[in-house]
Amino acid sequence: MKLLRVGTAGAETPALLDAEGGLRDLSGVVPDIDGALLADDTALERIRTAAEAGELPALDATGLRVGPPLARIGKIVCIGLNYHDHARETGAEPPAEPVVFFKAADTVVGPHDTVLVPRRSTKTDWEVELAVVIGRTARYVDSAEEALAHVAGYAVAHDVSEREFQIERGGTWDKGKNCETFNPLGPWLVTADEVPDPQDLSLRLWVNGELKQDGTTAEQIFPVGEVVRYVSQFMTLYPGDVINTGTPAGVAMGRPEPKPYLRAGDVVELEIEGLGRQRQVFKDA
Amino acid sequence: MKLLRVGTAGAETPALLDAEGGLRDLSGVVPDIDGALLADDTALERIRTAAEAGELPALDATGLRVGPPLARIGKIVCIGLNYHDHARETGAEPPAEPVVFFKAADTVVGPHDTVLVPRRSTKTDWEVELAVVIGRTARYVDSAEEALAHVAGYAVAHDVSEREFQIERGGTWDKGKNCETFNPLGPWLVTADEVPDPQDLSLRLWVNGELKQDGTTAEQIFPVGEVVRYVSQFMTLYPGDVINTGTPAGVAMGRPEPKPYLRAGDVVELEIEGLGRQRQVFKDA
Repeated sequence: MKLLRVGTAGAETPALLDAEGGLRDLSGVVPDIDGALLADDTALERIRTAAEAGELPALDATGLRVGPPLARIGKIVCIGLNYHDHARETGAEPPAEPVVFFKAADTVVGPHDTVLVPRRSTKTDWEVELAVVIGRTARYVDSAEEALAHVAGYAVAHDVSEREFQIERGGTWDKGKNCETFNPLGPWLVTADEVPDPQDLSLRLWVNGELKQDGTTAEQIFPVGEVVRYVSQFMTLYPGDVINTGTPAGVAMGRPEPKPYLRAGDVVELEIEGLGRQRQVFKDA
Repeated sequence: MKLLRVGTAGAETPALLDAEGGLRDLSGVVPDIDGALLADDTALERIRTAAEAGELPALDATGLRVGPPLARIGKIVCIGLNYHDHARETGAEPPAEPVVFFKAADTVVGPHDTVLVPRRSTKTDWEVELAVVIGRTARYVDSAEEALAHVAGYAVAHDVSEREFQIERGGTWDKGKNCETFNPLGPWLVTADEVPDPQDLSLRLWVNGELKQDGTTAEQIFPVGEVVRYVSQFMTLYPGDVINTGTPAGVAMGRPEPKPYLRAGDVVELEIEGLGRQRQVFKDA
């Protein structure tokens, strides 16, 4: 299923994208799309049954904002340098074990919402990423295969990054990853049953219409199941947590000087095969 | 005022510690103690008025668990190496600007709850810290003085840390800071009006009755107002966010070999002048 949330920021309605590409109102079936829903098999089954029975009212998509497809996100764990081609372009050795950093849930916006270039930023960069949404509590999980059973679904994430804040301002990366609006998410949360192989998805990103990233999750150093298993040795993952699993090559930081960092007015579009497409206009904070 | 939350984990009741050290039930006045309450001057005033009028029912504290004094915590921003004496003991240069890392809100437990030593941990360490609770949205704040006006109150935080996970496992510090139960908070949220000078508070921590940390916030490299101002240049702080402002000297990592890291059975007690005292028994995860 392709689940989404539409409407004004903070007051979104849960919806389903049907097989014909139309929107169906889920508000009569479930209160919202969040960790509690994803942990509840009967609620997901209720949606499926209502959809198959044709009982879900159509929603007119005209002029409707698309919000992030998940409410009440817990934590966002991010994996750094997780693509062979991206590690090469940044001049970094492929890490021996996953690099972990955090984004706060308050950085999440809808897939087509405005993204703000922070004040005093000169190095705002793009990163298309496969986001993994947790549906079952994962704590000291033994194997990558078992770990995959804790994944409720997948979505497109834009891990917007300020490279000076991230790398040149002392300490850890979090400083350049948590500026407001820095995590567009969506349009859809695609349930795991519709993503037979998360290691065979193409990811692409354009800036002002020019293709900048063109990768595949086959290049991930640590695949999704291994990432979930690994992270669960250090922290407990709860339903409604998200993991941004890293970005392929093609970011501004990896390019020759003058590096084409983002400025107000730039338009970024990104998509992952089967998970939908985002489009953001950048503005000054 | 000293605000707290008592009762079973996840079902706490808001309460007030009165001038005589007794508990008063706040559930008839406010729904809970969270960011929304702290952002609402009239709600805080309602508590004050009801307390002064003697209208708050007494609560029997016997056998009552104390929970974290804040519900629905947003993000927890942590400042590393923020005490001159602690920077010296770890062999680090005092940082030129604040070092920022994150703890997830799901690591927060009550001040006397069990803390779990993670599986495969050999370097679980203690850190007594002054926690700052945000009451007003702080975004690109101009001065340290103005920043202080965004602080709703203060609390004791225990920034439990796994040093191998933090430092020796690649990447950023977050991996060793986010194990479950790693952020005891409380017992009280003391409103800012009762803390006239946050740079003049003594902090102490004992392990199995032996004094290990004995510091003062006067040793902070970046004082509270400056920390809030600084962080607000990189990310927006919202009501209900928390900043752990760093730990003074005396952690296990700073001691000669064999370093006395924590094990199951150890008892840690910590307190900050005027903000109350915590006590945790450590167990294996």
